[in-house]
Amino acid sequence: MRILVVGATGTIGAAAVSALEAGHEVIRASRSSEIQVDLTDTESIQQMFSAVGTVDAVISCTGKVPYKPLTELEDADYQAGFSNKVLGQVNLVTVGIDHVADRGSFTLTTGILSRAPIATGTAASLANGALESFVMAAATELPRGIRINAVSPTVLVESPQYHPFFPGFPQVPAADVGRSFVRSVQGVETGQVFKI
Amino acid sequence: MRILVVGATGTIGAAAVSALEAGHEVIRASRSSEIQVDLTDTESIQQMFSAVGTVDAVISCTGKVPYKPLTELEDADYQAGFSNKVLGQVNLVTVGIDHVADRGSFTLTTGILSRAPIATGTAASLANGALESFVMAAATELPRGIRINAVSPTVLVESPQYHPFFPGFPQVPAADVGRSFVRSVQGVETGQVFKI
Repeated sequence: MRILVVGATGTIGAAAVSALEAGHEVIRASRSSEIQVDLTDTESIQQMFSAVGTVDAVISCTGKVPYKPLTELEDADYQAGFSNKVLGQVNLVTVGIDHVADRGSFTLTTGILSRAPIATGTAASLANGALESFVMAAATELPRGIRINAVSPTVLVESPQYHPFFPGFPQVPAADVGRSFVRSVQGVETGQVFKI
Repeated sequence: MRILVVGATGTIGAAAVSALEAGHEVIRASRSSEIQVDLTDTESIQQMFSAVGTVDAVISCTGKVPYKPLTELEDADYQAGFSNKVLGQVNLVTVGIDHVADRGSFTLTTGILSRAPIATGTAASLANGALESFVMAAATELPRGIRINAVSPTVLVESPQYHPFFPGFPQVPAADVGRSFVRSVQGVETGQVFKI
């Protein structure tokens, strides 16, 4: 398969690439990769697909959200998280439909904060919850047998800088997260949130 | 208790008012009520609370989202649903914190589309999923014992115009939805989504 990984330079993106590159042609895109893209700009997404051509799978490992105490979060913060993490990945699907092969797939990245809270994480919870319900619904209307799933990990073993913010939370090796992308890309499931 | 119901003129808002007005002072707000408010405008929310004063409970039964096939939904549609239904209700919480009494509560309205899809409902699913994760997270950081929950109903018996869009879905009487607002306002639960 030809697999486009957007956000390939991050820890999760690298895990997806690592899990898939042995058996597939993996094309890396990010703000700084050979293939550059800004998901907040639909024209930039169009240009990426024009450069890449048709793919069998699109994987997105992107999205930034502000972390602040609830009483300091303003509408601009929620909007920033929505524009970047939610609308960025949704735009990738909207524009990408015409560039994914029949029976291809999209796999988005969300996270445990959709279903469990941490301090300062309210805007992130909102964004992840939005994406997981989007995936559930979009799966029912995608054309040509195209599938869509989300990978929703807890904090990574390989990201110790975040461990203090997830006290006592399970920690998952990046390789296990990578395996979930394989399940989404090579399997038959759709509309699913792979919680790991 | 003094209870502010925003969106009091809608079917769900009327059910909330009807369930609570016997035992409480219920203050109605909407775009067209005596107390007017536009939740997409934080200044309008401030003005509402200046007029109303401190309340024990804030109930929101508001929010519009575009319904279109997935392949016709553009980023402007997702943004419109987010700005109106999600950010509108989130703004009500952000601004409202300072106007809710100790151990008071917020109750937002979401809907079954967070967890079940219907045709043309992807933007609504996204909005409802965002709000339900927001409620789960915000509950952990609200000050002074303030609680927050969401009421998340299926289609109402009293809204036959929507029944064709929910084929075979359970239908709930508005009075049952009203009862969930009572549970949220008078009970002790927080961070919950009452699915009815």
